[in-house]
Amino acid sequence: MRMYDLIVKKRNGGILTREEIAFMVRGYTDGEIPDYQMSAMMMAVYFQGMDEEETLSLTMSMRDSGEVLDLSAIAGIKVDKHSTGGVGDKTSLALAPMVAACGIPVAKMSGRGLGHTGGTIDKLESFTGFSTSIPSERFVENVNRIGISIMGQTANLAPADKKLYALRDVTATVDNMSLIASSIMSKKLAAGADAIVLDVKTGSGAFMKAEADSFALAREMVKIGNGAGKKCVAVVSDMDQPLGFAVGNALEVEEAIATLKGRGPADFVELCLTLGAQMLLLGKKAETEQEAREKLLAVIKDGSALQKLAEFVEAQGGDAAAVYDTARLPKASLTKEVKADKDGFVGHINCEEVGVCSLILGGGRETKESCIDLSVGIVLQKKTGDNVLSGDTLAVLYANERDKMEEAERRLKLAYRITNEMPQKRSLIKGVIS
Amino acid sequence: MRMYDLIVKKRNGGILTREEIAFMVRGYTDGEIPDYQMSAMMMAVYFQGMDEEETLSLTMSMRDSGEVLDLSAIAGIKVDKHSTGGVGDKTSLALAPMVAACGIPVAKMSGRGLGHTGGTIDKLESFTGFSTSIPSERFVENVNRIGISIMGQTANLAPADKKLYALRDVTATVDNMSLIASSIMSKKLAAGADAIVLDVKTGSGAFMKAEADSFALAREMVKIGNGAGKKCVAVVSDMDQPLGFAVGNALEVEEAIATLKGRGPADFVELCLTLGAQMLLLGKKAETEQEAREKLLAVIKDGSALQKLAEFVEAQGGDAAAVYDTARLPKASLTKEVKADKDGFVGHINCEEVGVCSLILGGGRETKESCIDLSVGIVLQKKTGDNVLSGDTLAVLYANERDKMEEAERRLKLAYRITNEMPQKRSLIKGVIS
Repeated sequence: MRMYDLIVKKRNGGILTREEIAFMVRGYTDGEIPDYQMSAMMMAVYFQGMDEEETLSLTMSMRDSGEVLDLSAIAGIKVDKHSTGGVGDKTSLALAPMVAACGIPVAKMSGRGLGHTGGTIDKLESFTGFSTSIPSERFVENVNRIGISIMGQTANLAPADKKLYALRDVTATVDNMSLIASSIMSKKLAAGADAIVLDVKTGSGAFMKAEADSFALAREMVKIGNGAGKKCVAVVSDMDQPLGFAVGNALEVEEAIATLKGRGPADFVELCLTLGAQMLLLGKKAETEQEAREKLLAVIKDGSALQKLAEFVEAQGGDAAAVYDTARLPKASLTKEVKADKDGFVGHINCEEVGVCSLILGGGRETKESCIDLSVGIVLQKKTGDNVLSGDTLAVLYANERDKMEEAERRLKLAYRITNEMPQKRSLIKGVIS
Repeated sequence: MRMYDLIVKKRNGGILTREEIAFMVRGYTDGEIPDYQMSAMMMAVYFQGMDEEETLSLTMSMRDSGEVLDLSAIAGIKVDKHSTGGVGDKTSLALAPMVAACGIPVAKMSGRGLGHTGGTIDKLESFTGFSTSIPSERFVENVNRIGISIMGQTANLAPADKKLYALRDVTATVDNMSLIASSIMSKKLAAGADAIVLDVKTGSGAFMKAEADSFALAREMVKIGNGAGKKCVAVVSDMDQPLGFAVGNALEVEEAIATLKGRGPADFVELCLTLGAQMLLLGKKAETEQEAREKLLAVIKDGSALQKLAEFVEAQGGDAAAVYDTARLPKASLTKEVKADKDGFVGHINCEEVGVCSLILGGGRETKESCIDLSVGIVLQKKTGDNVLSGDTLAVLYANERDKMEEAERRLKLAYRITNEMPQKRSLIKGVIS
């Protein structure tokens, strides 16, 4: 078998067999197939596409390119959750303790953030001392003992995907549904859960801006999950404005804690209930969605979800007292209110720009090596559809450097569009694919 | 400017500007743009194409990536000839002395062969002592003195094309008309002639097998030539069977000499006259095609073309006596007649296979490093349309190794298709594009 012939085949619209895809992924990971042949192949895939079979084969080959976690030492149905990423997306911070409190074992691998979307690990490090660098035995032990543990992604998780994504990123071959779906799913499947709930974002702050594309990606990923023998559900949810009010690491932790105390923003609570219900259904902890939502609300009400978060933080070396006293979280030294300069409605918030403002303040990574400032960020006070008067505070900036704060202020102001007409309401949950 | 953005632009069907193409070619030649980005770009070009402007820009950028020969020290209109390559294509060997004898200065760069098609330089080395490694001053001096000189291609001729072609060759991005045409024309334009006659082959032994593709390539190249300010004519000629009878280096030299002595195969003579007439017209040595053909026939008849060949061989250190006594050319030690095993007509000769037989005998290069045996090859006795009886000799093999000869015999037999019906005659000259 020669990579050259496979490129010709795909270029001419042919269908690659499972063996051919396995050969290609293995050869590329080993360095036997050079970057320049793989990038030509990826561009051919961009134009000719991959069918369902090919997409599944690619996913499985990438999954098998490294370690595939065995979570069988953990009792119960392990249900993983994955978000395609967005601004202010602190869902895991609240949802993991909620479902754990309902009896779903949470054995999760998380990543750090790059660009304007922060990673769950970064956010959790707002608890002084918290660490995800734990040996896998303690990871398993923690899940069995307290029901929840999060570890950092091992280097050997789907290394083929890591190498291929880096190549696609610089050769303009990212934008293909099969390639995007197989990239996400190869890592999820290698992470060893029994079932997966996907949160596919859509809108100005999402990777997929158009709703139709988000649905297509959701369907593609569910098909792959099912093809790989895992129960899989995808929720398509709105990311046309930040989720909740807080954007920034410690600020988001604070909002997640508030949510577990029953004082969460309505949209964020609703997303947690929707995703959590699907997790409880897949994990056989509820018969109906209604029952699942009630259980999730109950663990908020009785404080057991909040307690679960504290147990989890403590088990991984973090300052659990901060769960009950958020003054112990990192705090920024400067604040600045961003004001509206005319009357009207918030017609639209450029969600990606809000993320960029957080990045400017120091809350995100420009490159993999960047240090992030956990204390900085933005708390929105007005969201899309809200009525504003000139002089009203649209958002509050939290910063440690005055020049960055001023730049963020300028940009955040422009990210808000104030209109005379009230905008059409966008629904938060666009649909559920299973 | 970033290569990434150019890939996106072309991928999305955009038109690259002259500056963008120049940036890309320069960056790639310098090694600043990596292979993997260029191969993605080439695959995008494969799918999206390049328009006339882009193709011209690419050609000019590749031409200018290295040395562009200045032939102004040579008096007269320099007319170059280029063939897209075929089996038994010894045209330059006869045509160069013919047009030189008619007063066209022949200042030619030639290459060595790779694969089954031998290069002009290889063939000329059949004259013991002949060398194309001559300093450019002597090259110019020889053309001014005797009217003809051939030198080896300098390493610095269109280096961008060399690098890009090598990449396309291993990434399945060769088959695009704009890329093929710009590759050929960048080298031709760098070689410094005032006018160019292109011999575009078509049929089973040609790079372009389909006539429509050959015409498209011919038109594309003429457009580029004109766009670059050079007079340019393309002849599309048949390569569905070998040209003339001889295939193999010294054997082809012998056939070219026979042609200059007035005993050439009809098809080969006709091709030389057609191409030569275009060269004389472009070089203003004739007013009409008829006049040009008469002049070319005259220099055969009066022996001046043959004498020109002898002068040329002598001037470059070769054994000119062999021009008059071809027994001095390299001879193979073994011969074998390949016989027909049934009656009928030669319905078709798989031209490429005849070339492969010559390669097997040792007459071509499998890799750039291979040594070639100048003496071996094939002389056809029957060509397409000829009547054969069982036991008739189809062709004679010239070899130095028995096992190779037997393999070539087996394959050559299969290359001949003997049919009951007389095949339709294919015309040699398919058209002239100017």
